Amino acid sequence: MEKPVPHFREELEALQSRLLEMGGLAEERVRAAIQSLVDRDPAGIGRILAGDEPVNRLHVEIDERCFRLLALHQPMATDLRAIVAAVKINTDLERVGDLAVNIAEAATRYITHPPVKKLIDIPQMGDIAQAMLRDALDSYVKRDTGLAEHVLTEDDRLDGLKTQVFRELLTYMLQDPTTVEPAIDLILVSRHLERIGDHATNIAEDVIFMVSALDVRHHLPPPA
Amino acid sequence: MEKPVPHFREELEALQSRLLEMGGLAEERVRAAIQSLVDRDPAGIGRILAGDEPVNRLHVEIDERCFRLLALHQPMATDLRAIVAAVKINTDLERVGDLAVNIAEAATRYITHPPVKKLIDIPQMGDIAQAMLRDALDSYVKRDTGLAEHVLTEDDRLDGLKTQVFRELLTYMLQDPTTVEPAIDLILVSRHLERIGDHATNIAEDVIFMVSALDVRHHLPPPA
Repeated sequence: MEKPVPHFREELEALQSRLLEMGGLAEERVRAAIQSLVDRDPAGIGRILAGDEPVNRLHVEIDERCFRLLALHQPMATDLRAIVAAVKINTDLERVGDLAVNIAEAATRYITHPPVKKLIDIPQMGDIAQAMLRDALDSYVKRDTGLAEHVLTEDDRLDGLKTQVFRELLTYMLQDPTTVEPAIDLILVSRHLERIGDHATNIAEDVIFMVSALDVRHHLPPPA
Repeated sequence: MEKPVPHFREELEALQSRLLEMGGLAEERVRAAIQSLVDRDPAGIGRILAGDEPVNRLHVEIDERCFRLLALHQPMATDLRAIVAAVKINTDLERVGDLAVNIAEAATRYITHPPVKKLIDIPQMGDIAQAMLRDALDSYVKRDTGLAEHVLTEDDRLDGLKTQVFRELLTYMLQDPTTVEPAIDLILVSRHLERIGDHATNIAEDVIFMVSALDVRHHLPPPA
């Protein structure tokens, strides 16, 4: 006996709740990676490095759900854009999971050296990046372009902190060569966090495109 | 008078030729960015920084073509996967264009200092990353999973060179603090090139998925 084709709205809602779940997992991995770095906690770092199986499973499942929705329901207009956006958001979230691993790899090296400094800006960058991810996904589910715009603004704040982290660490490195290796790892962590912010920005831009069919991704002059 | 709906195959071929064109532009920007770094050429660097309008226009156009194909033709199976893959590949290529800008930004800073060393590994990384992009797009158009697998192998070579570049530059920095700032920029350039390789890898994985419907992206145990 064949299963009946489920209603489109139910399937779309199931897809969105899976995306939120995946976003929550990715965000938690970023939080845990930064916390393990701050706490210099090898066991915590090890848990991040041990793998990302729940995120990877969801990544595959969400892709399959998107294809099923496209193939069975052949949606149009906003629904079509919502599902294609889900494919892209899914990719962004998976990369965020990978970046948590990159942070943990830098942390592994970092804690083999004495601390360069008390970590203040990097945890703050982590908080901003996590909030950006949360808001970007909320803006997707609620079709809230105002919230999506807020994510774009926050990205500037994250970039500003990244520059500040870099300048400060450079001063340390120039004064004391023993700080070069660990300082480079902190610079890399700040870049990984910046990229997590970029993924949240991508999601927010997809939401604005999905809702308004307006392409904010490039400020292009009108075609000739 | 309404225009007739063009044939699906023609539209799909037009989409693919646009993707190849975009890939060619992105690849050329990477080449030019690395060349300007090697030549310490501010004018060349300036051209990369001046913008990416042709790539951005193609990015928007390809997205529109994908949506039109999905909405008008409601493709199934391999065709559906090919178009969703095009959406993803389009995103990857646009990010490659952004990474060329990131390389040019690092080059701007780098050439304000005396050269740290003769650049050999970084141009080699650039060549590998460009070839990976070219092969990944070829594997998409030709549906050639063998070529896609080759791209995955090349990524390991790129990662190996990145590690080598890092170790060598670290030695310079530890011996001579005046090399710290420019060496960090070279490390960042090597990371940008590594990320370009990651985008080529993403494309290759999408091709393998598209052709074989086999998900190579995560080595997951079978579901319970």
